Amino acid sequence: MNPSDVDIVLEQVRKALNQEDWNRAVSLVEALRPPDQADVFGELPPGAQDVLLPRLGVEDSADILEELEEDEAAEIAARLEPEDLAQILDEMEPDEAADLLGDIAPEHAAEVLAAMEEPEEIRPLLVHADESAGGLMTSVKVTLHKDMTVEQAFAHLRTSELEPRTTYYLFVVDTDVRLVGVVPLRRLVVAPLSADITSIMDTDVISVEANADQEEAARLMSRYDLLALPVVDGENHLLGLITHDDLVEVLEEEATEDIYRLGGLPEEQPHDAPVLSSLRTRLPWLALNLGTAMVSGAVLKAFEDTIAQVAVLAMFFPVVAGVSGSAGTQALTVTVRGLSLGELDPRDGFRSLGREVTIGLVNGLAVGVLVALIALALGGAPVLGVVVGVATLLNMIGAGIAGAVVPVIMQVSKVDPALSSPILVTTITDACGYLFYLGLATLVLASLI
Amino acid sequence: MNPSDVDIVLEQVRKALNQEDWNRAVSLVEALRPPDQADVFGELPPGAQDVLLPRLGVEDSADILEELEEDEAAEIAARLEPEDLAQILDEMEPDEAADLLGDIAPEHAAEVLAAMEEPEEIRPLLVHADESAGGLMTSVKVTLHKDMTVEQAFAHLRTSELEPRTTYYLFVVDTDVRLVGVVPLRRLVVAPLSADITSIMDTDVISVEANADQEEAARLMSRYDLLALPVVDGENHLLGLITHDDLVEVLEEEATEDIYRLGGLPEEQPHDAPVLSSLRTRLPWLALNLGTAMVSGAVLKAFEDTIAQVAVLAMFFPVVAGVSGSAGTQALTVTVRGLSLGELDPRDGFRSLGREVTIGLVNGLAVGVLVALIALALGGAPVLGVVVGVATLLNMIGAGIAGAVVPVIMQVSKVDPALSSPILVTTITDACGYLFYLGLATLVLASLI
Repeated sequence: MNPSDVDIVLEQVRKALNQEDWNRAVSLVEALRPPDQADVFGELPPGAQDVLLPRLGVEDSADILEELEEDEAAEIAARLEPEDLAQILDEMEPDEAADLLGDIAPEHAAEVLAAMEEPEEIRPLLVHADESAGGLMTSVKVTLHKDMTVEQAFAHLRTSELEPRTTYYLFVVDTDVRLVGVVPLRRLVVAPLSADITSIMDTDVISVEANADQEEAARLMSRYDLLALPVVDGENHLLGLITHDDLVEVLEEEATEDIYRLGGLPEEQPHDAPVLSSLRTRLPWLALNLGTAMVSGAVLKAFEDTIAQVAVLAMFFPVVAGVSGSAGTQALTVTVRGLSLGELDPRDGFRSLGREVTIGLVNGLAVGVLVALIALALGGAPVLGVVVGVATLLNMIGAGIAGAVVPVIMQVSKVDPALSSPILVTTITDACGYLFYLGLATLVLASLI
Repeated sequence: MNPSDVDIVLEQVRKALNQEDWNRAVSLVEALRPPDQADVFGELPPGAQDVLLPRLGVEDSADILEELEEDEAAEIAARLEPEDLAQILDEMEPDEAADLLGDIAPEHAAEVLAAMEEPEEIRPLLVHADESAGGLMTSVKVTLHKDMTVEQAFAHLRTSELEPRTTYYLFVVDTDVRLVGVVPLRRLVVAPLSADITSIMDTDVISVEANADQEEAARLMSRYDLLALPVVDGENHLLGLITHDDLVEVLEEEATEDIYRLGGLPEEQPHDAPVLSSLRTRLPWLALNLGTAMVSGAVLKAFEDTIAQVAVLAMFFPVVAGVSGSAGTQALTVTVRGLSLGELDPRDGFRSLGREVTIGLVNGLAVGVLVALIALALGGAPVLGVVVGVATLLNMIGAGIAGAVVPVIMQVSKVDPALSSPILVTTITDACGYLFYLGLATLVLASLI
């Protein structure tokens, strides 16, 4: 559904709720697919949500809580009675249920857990850190035993609850629940009924340890094109599995994190985050920027006399500092994205340094000549043109070096390059730009006055 | 495998090739998983690749060509005889084979196609634009007919070629190959053998038209959590399907595109792209930046007399322009990412404007006071402190407005906000910063001298 279609249904639901026509409101929501249900439901005022939710079935309620933004779902869950929430959680995917429980008050969560039918499916998921592989995993409802035949496996599947997300690979375990193999569902379908599971399973299973970073899990799934990734402990016991919807979420999360950090936002915040929390993220970063701007300020202060004597120099400040700043941003963007996608190995840093210096040199020559011509065209002294052009050239080369080197140094120092590089590179191109420009101007001051 | 493990195997393969021990080189590569095979293979010199490839089986060759970067695969393919390449392509996923054929010389591609066993699987895929849903799709090898029973479906599957990526959903068609339903494989597995396919299929199938944008296809798959998305023509004939590995690729591609454009790079280029092609992307953008920097330059030129009289004013140029520039970048990053993820509707632009103005006001007050105090602490006249502080405050509010409004206007005008916003917002914060600062300073000039 398009956003505009969601709006139309939302209007109809609002109207039905105003007329207290609960049946119509319920049937309007029930006719939608879960993500659309959540979109409509999320736009309703809390009062309307509390009236509507109990009237929807537990399954629809579970779908809606799964699909809502985490904070919205937590707010709604916090307003539900423990018994009602427990019923809904029993219907949710275990990993989603565990995430939701982690987002509400601990006492409330304990009561809800106690009221659930199958709390033992959720409890083991609650102990893992949010950003770890364990934090992403859901519980495995169906496994095959290594001593089964294909026919026994079919019989086992027919009596089990087959969840949509977790059954494209069937994991094979031994009596100690150690992971020994995997059978893709499609292979089972075409296998002779009398065959042993061990004869059709792959034994070389890619898995991840529960305490590994979620990025590591996503990298494995995306690199090896996996729909599900088994999570094991140090002794290869099968603890759970990560499904492909989590991969998509982690990929979007990591990309958003990079984009935010490159844009000077240390923490991701949605466009409609409360003003106060936005201030908390943004202000410290601006204060840091203020500090680095004062570095350039100090350079300018040092050349106060030169500026006083040739004030027209100021006209090219934005060019010398700004255009090189853009060149530095280009270089660091390429480097940071390469590191982040794992395409650029920090050990290859010097190769990209050579590349960026060459690019800086050529672009610096081109822009430098252009700037010099502009200076002349605007009636400046020929010497001014040379000073502006040479300063730009030097600073463009410096920008290339900074853009190639800073992110690699940060990566090796275990500081996120996306977060730290832009501010450092800009500081360098700014301060160096003023230094080259005003330094050269001071050297030839007599011919500029 | 980690990059370092790939390096170890690579060394062993190199050594085996140097000793002309082909069998050892082949068995080292064959023992790897396809993405690792491609990593090792891609690092070998062309001569070694040409020696090794014919000695690997066609299946391994197909895996390697599928997993290599597109340009690397095309280079290798261009060096193969049409008959040899045709054999390999017959083993590849149809969509990957079609992509590869599109990347080599048309005459060569025509010869290869003529030599293939099943060119009719590839031909229909060649007609769609690269970035369209049709360009992503692969051919459907197995469909169910609406008049089958579950037992007949099983028999049909057992005699068909079940591809790993395309069989988690079985699409149901009528005699005209119109898409009428879908049966998840797991549901077929547990259904009674005598049931009709129509009785267990979902009829409300999400599909995409072949000429839709690939982003639209990715959005549907990610929103509705689909492993495969059927592609249809205007009359609902099933043309092909898009598999989940394509979703992951499109998501990474789109994120990379946004990151590159926000970093001032109109076109994505890997970190090791040839210098010349990097220059072609970067230089025009820097020239454009030069033009906008001259706007700020013009403002500075207009206030040449003020600068000549109070040269110390220059010390705070980086603060007034730079810190507000950072604030503008923060605001536009939030807006651009919100638009790009579809979370921010352009029609809600005014709501985020109010938010950003508030944030700009509060941050402006905080940073403005801080800057004023710094100016005083450095021994400046009290009036200088006030001028710097007020200019910063005004420009921070301006930065918030620009960061919230510019991307939305661009989106509505169908210009990519990620590409156009940063340069526009920086120009505004730069020029306005100098204007506020030097304008105020000129007004109170007498008390500054």
